[in-house]
Amino acid sequence: MHDHLPHYITRHKNLIDKELQQHLHKLSVPNQLKESMLYSVEAGGKRLRPILMMASFESFQNGVEKVLTTACALEMIHTYSLIHDDLPAMDDDDLRRGKPTNHKVFDEATAILAGDGLLTYSFEIVANDPMLSEHEKVEIIKLLAQASGPSGMVAGQILDMKSEDQSISLEALDQIHRLKTGELISFAVHAGAYLGQATKEQLEYLRTFSTYLGLIFQVQDDILDVVGDPDKLGKPLGSDEGNQKSTYPKLLGLEGARQKKEDYIQKATHALRKAHAEESYLLVLTEYLANRDH
Amino acid sequence: MHDHLPHYITRHKNLIDKELQQHLHKLSVPNQLKESMLYSVEAGGKRLRPILMMASFESFQNGVEKVLTTACALEMIHTYSLIHDDLPAMDDDDLRRGKPTNHKVFDEATAILAGDGLLTYSFEIVANDPMLSEHEKVEIIKLLAQASGPSGMVAGQILDMKSEDQSISLEALDQIHRLKTGELISFAVHAGAYLGQATKEQLEYLRTFSTYLGLIFQVQDDILDVVGDPDKLGKPLGSDEGNQKSTYPKLLGLEGARQKKEDYIQKATHALRKAHAEESYLLVLTEYLANRDH
Repeated sequence: MHDHLPHYITRHKNLIDKELQQHLHKLSVPNQLKESMLYSVEAGGKRLRPILMMASFESFQNGVEKVLTTACALEMIHTYSLIHDDLPAMDDDDLRRGKPTNHKVFDEATAILAGDGLLTYSFEIVANDPMLSEHEKVEIIKLLAQASGPSGMVAGQILDMKSEDQSISLEALDQIHRLKTGELISFAVHAGAYLGQATKEQLEYLRTFSTYLGLIFQVQDDILDVVGDPDKLGKPLGSDEGNQKSTYPKLLGLEGARQKKEDYIQKATHALRKAHAEESYLLVLTEYLANRDH
Repeated sequence: MHDHLPHYITRHKNLIDKELQQHLHKLSVPNQLKESMLYSVEAGGKRLRPILMMASFESFQNGVEKVLTTACALEMIHTYSLIHDDLPAMDDDDLRRGKPTNHKVFDEATAILAGDGLLTYSFEIVANDPMLSEHEKVEIIKLLAQASGPSGMVAGQILDMKSEDQSISLEALDQIHRLKTGELISFAVHAGAYLGQATKEQLEYLRTFSTYLGLIFQVQDDILDVVGDPDKLGKPLGSDEGNQKSTYPKLLGLEGARQKKEDYIQKATHALRKAHAEESYLLVLTEYLANRDH
């Protein structure tokens, strides 16, 4: 590792931002649709999932050119899911990262279609990626569709909605997050390592690692909703409370949630060692995500 | 051709219905999501696009096993587009084929997610299709994403919405339909012929054929909205009028619309002859679609 983490993150975020722009700007689509798609893709995302994918790839290979398009596809799917989640019929959010949500700037119909467009386009760019073999394209499309589809992220979203106003168990809460946010995080790690030609055994350990990483991410999200800085978060505190959502602090107390997070960090680190990837940026990224303030 | 057309249609519709059931029933997803996805897929669709794909394939090869999964993917994408189009923020329709629309039976959030789920799953089943080579899978995914995505069907949908309450030219109307309904119809014909190993020249003529076929389909749709039988259509007449939509009868008069349709039929038939596919069911299907009563 040559870079300090903030520099690593900035450098890789810039690569992704540029690649996303290229993919979206070359699209020949009606103006309003394009503006709506661009608005949400450029609305200040941290590019966490693409950066994780690149770090995972770099655990096994040098240079990130090979995963850039797959990373963009992942970020487009993440963005589509946020646009649809924010809709009045879903979480009904007016703000996202401190900016008006897509349907507030455009309208609901345009937001629905921008999401549909980003989702569909993500598969198109993978299928057209000149850096991948046909075998790799098919494998990536399988993994991406599974992670984001009705057995993955979409399942998590519906379970999350159905669990509002209900008290649920810690196991049920873990399950929701594993699907809703964990599946895409796991895809990031898995796809990066797969394209980096990790062995089957390494992929297996990285799957375990990424499952814990997703849970760490979510526990910290819940903690920040209680004790975070609203300015840094770009949203008011207590929104989970307002939604009657089950959260880790609610089920375990704030201290219990912090202990749970530490436990998950231990397990993630152990799996990373088993995959012989503990020297990579995946470890420092895990610590960074576990302690992020926004 | 051995079958009469009604028998051909029934036989192929049954094949698709069975295959769709198999793909959907094996999905391990939350109950409500599955019910919602199944509800719309099983809500009486005519399976027109899959049947066209099979007829196109059979213009060049015997047996339809090879295209069954691709045909299901197409029907799932068609179904997702109907679910999203019917939403209150879009066309706000309560009935579809005489049955309550998805968001009326479930709720808006579930309908949005069922659509998202069907769209994503369609790419997954193509990527997993054991009948296709990796090269064919990548090609089909490219074509399908392009036809249904932000430069295709999704573009048509946004242009259609923006054109409401406006008077638009015949060229603009053709353009909207070419994108909104034509792209998937073209994909059906193109993918079927591609998997049937049509030559490049044949594919080119079939592209022309399918463009006219899509327009024929739409002109007849507009005509039925004026003079059709509401019971057969499963919806009241005059819904386009109510929406202030531009239609062929409105722009050309009813007789002018019928002449336009005849003109398109001539052009479609000519292209089909050039592709040496005039002996196939594509020709009789064209006549059938041009004169359908629902």
